Amino acid sequence: MKTELIKKAKNHLRQNKLSSWLIYNYKGSNPFFEKIIGKKIDGLTRPIWFVIKVDQEPLIITHKLDSNFVREEGLIIEEYTDRKSMMNLLKEKLPTGSKVAMEYSPNGLIPRTSFVDAGTIDMCKNELGLNIISSANIIQDIAGKWTEKQLESHLIAGEKLKEILEETFDFIGSNIHWKLTEFDIAEFIRGKFDRYELETDHGPVVAVNQNSSLPHYEPKEETSSIITRNSWLLIDLWAKTKTENSVYSDITWVAQLGDTIPDENQKIFEIVKNTRDLSFNFIKDNFKNNKLVKGFEVDQFARQHISDSGYGEFFIHRLGHSIGTDVHSVSVNLDSFETVDERNITEGIGFSIEPGIYLDNFGVRSEINVFINDQNPEITTPIQNEIITINTKSPRKNN
Amino acid sequence: MKTELIKKAKNHLRQNKLSSWLIYNYKGSNPFFEKIIGKKIDGLTRPIWFVIKVDQEPLIITHKLDSNFVREEGLIIEEYTDRKSMMNLLKEKLPTGSKVAMEYSPNGLIPRTSFVDAGTIDMCKNELGLNIISSANIIQDIAGKWTEKQLESHLIAGEKLKEILEETFDFIGSNIHWKLTEFDIAEFIRGKFDRYELETDHGPVVAVNQNSSLPHYEPKEETSSIITRNSWLLIDLWAKTKTENSVYSDITWVAQLGDTIPDENQKIFEIVKNTRDLSFNFIKDNFKNNKLVKGFEVDQFARQHISDSGYGEFFIHRLGHSIGTDVHSVSVNLDSFETVDERNITEGIGFSIEPGIYLDNFGVRSEINVFINDQNPEITTPIQNEIITINTKSPRKNN
Repeated sequence: MKTELIKKAKNHLRQNKLSSWLIYNYKGSNPFFEKIIGKKIDGLTRPIWFVIKVDQEPLIITHKLDSNFVREEGLIIEEYTDRKSMMNLLKEKLPTGSKVAMEYSPNGLIPRTSFVDAGTIDMCKNELGLNIISSANIIQDIAGKWTEKQLESHLIAGEKLKEILEETFDFIGSNIHWKLTEFDIAEFIRGKFDRYELETDHGPVVAVNQNSSLPHYEPKEETSSIITRNSWLLIDLWAKTKTENSVYSDITWVAQLGDTIPDENQKIFEIVKNTRDLSFNFIKDNFKNNKLVKGFEVDQFARQHISDSGYGEFFIHRLGHSIGTDVHSVSVNLDSFETVDERNITEGIGFSIEPGIYLDNFGVRSEINVFINDQNPEITTPIQNEIITINTKSPRKNN
Repeated sequence: MKTELIKKAKNHLRQNKLSSWLIYNYKGSNPFFEKIIGKKIDGLTRPIWFVIKVDQEPLIITHKLDSNFVREEGLIIEEYTDRKSMMNLLKEKLPTGSKVAMEYSPNGLIPRTSFVDAGTIDMCKNELGLNIISSANIIQDIAGKWTEKQLESHLIAGEKLKEILEETFDFIGSNIHWKLTEFDIAEFIRGKFDRYELETDHGPVVAVNQNSSLPHYEPKEETSSIITRNSWLLIDLWAKTKTENSVYSDITWVAQLGDTIPDENQKIFEIVKNTRDLSFNFIKDNFKNNKLVKGFEVDQFARQHISDSGYGEFFIHRLGHSIGTDVHSVSVNLDSFETVDERNITEGIGFSIEPGIYLDNFGVRSEINVFINDQNPEITTPIQNEIITINTKSPRKNN
């Protein structure tokens, strides 16, 4: 059992005047059940409930047949044998009218916080008379906040990524006379991750010309394109240090091989860069004025700016995502596009800002990371202000 | 894609005047998505919808990034890129007011048919204006019905189980002078499954004396009890033939070692046996009178009978479960105890009837299987009408 998370959850309940956090799980339906238990639990056969209340020991309500799966010290277990005894236990622990947080997202606006089936929510409302609200803010509060040590790991990862990027651009310039593919460069970067003691889940994105028009392009060995002396290049790379609970850094830069940056690429880059910086300032200004700002609002702001520049239809993903021990993490995303993330941007969380414009023949994305340090939004990664140009005239080197 | 299932689903929709069956899946949340697709699909990242309508080709609405996971011949794919385009596609395919079946169980009465999160059901009701009903009856209709060949496999399995039981009782009688444990007998039965070309998921239950008071007892090698010359014995065994799509048979019998059946065991056996037979007759009478009967009603009927006999509190599980290619299958269960199964018992499905009474020092369960053949409920397994007595006076055999 994750006592640290439970302690934080209790604090959240207290501050927000909630009666309880009720984590319902049926055969693994709710990932937050295992997150709180702190381990993988196979074999559950019946509905099981984890009840966290401000002034009580954590409690599990489980069918008798499943109780051995979850028994541990400091955790109260109450067993039921049938639906009636389950309902009686729930009624006893959760008085009618209680304000209870569950993994429920009204209208499914944030799918990754919506893990309780409709019938069970019905039952909690109709039969138990509970006042159900979304647990999305609890999750952000207890699992999304970085510790000082995590922030440090994130900053270190960011510096290393920048060094790897520079080495990569150099490597491309020095080896452009060979048949160099996107996949080769991805392999080069993965090798560097190893050397720099970084780890990652997948990636990086290494994309030239029209491949950079695909936001999630990842080069495959058999099909990846050759990098030529006048290629447009987009690299998106993310990794974290190989230390406990380290936090990802995640950046995207663009480059032009050769001396000549086409006007259109330059123009699009300026729009993307400005959108990135204006979005950050939008958040910063709100914090300065003590105004709460929600994830979807920043996305809308950025989207409006790109639309006003005439490229709205080419910005085909959300503005940014929560970052944590997973590169896509559990806190608020800057998103009004795929979902509508109505959570507030709060102290202690981190996320990416990564506007992009994807035309037919090339795409531009620029990505930075932001951390809310106390009440102060800070950029935590290197910032690209000019398109990198890669010198392709270097003489052949002897290997 | 399982075209046979889809065809059956369309028939169900037509007969029941439903507009569509809408199978919503988010990262593997809904097992019926894969059942209809007919294969395991990993890697989905976004909400995905399988739409089955009476007069149209099956259709998938998916995020562009996920469409390659599900592409196949005869399946129409419509891609969305954001929430707005997803909603527009759903609105186009599912006009406001349509009567649509989803994996939704009102008040969560049948958890294993309730796989859509509350937020998404909200959205379907509030934003799309759909009239949502439970798909539980579709599932029973298309996946629960046995074919003639499956019925045959089930009958064969039942005969073999009976033979194995007889051999087991003989084996115990002949070897009682050895130190024989429950685990030894379970191993003996598993060996017989092999010999008879049967397969099973786990089990059997072999339980003596107070172990038979635990409905789900399975003997472990290190801890199982020794069978003695005056033990009370309960054996529950289930298996299916090793042929394609074969259906399980699942029976429970009880026996007394030695000549003397204690009065209490005899009395409890009679109550259990009568409950079993009365429950079957209850179903049969309803069918004879053209009255629909629901799963939970049969359980309530049986429970009432056992309560009237004074043992209500000792009947600590449901009366019976759906049987199919899994021993616990997808159709209606005879259950008002753990869940409230409001589905009708319909033509072509099979299930167990297995009342039990579990006292402190021993338990009795008697289990038969029933198949609804056309409109005629039939018992498909051997029926235990007397407690088996195992002769323990046999002379030692030379091995």
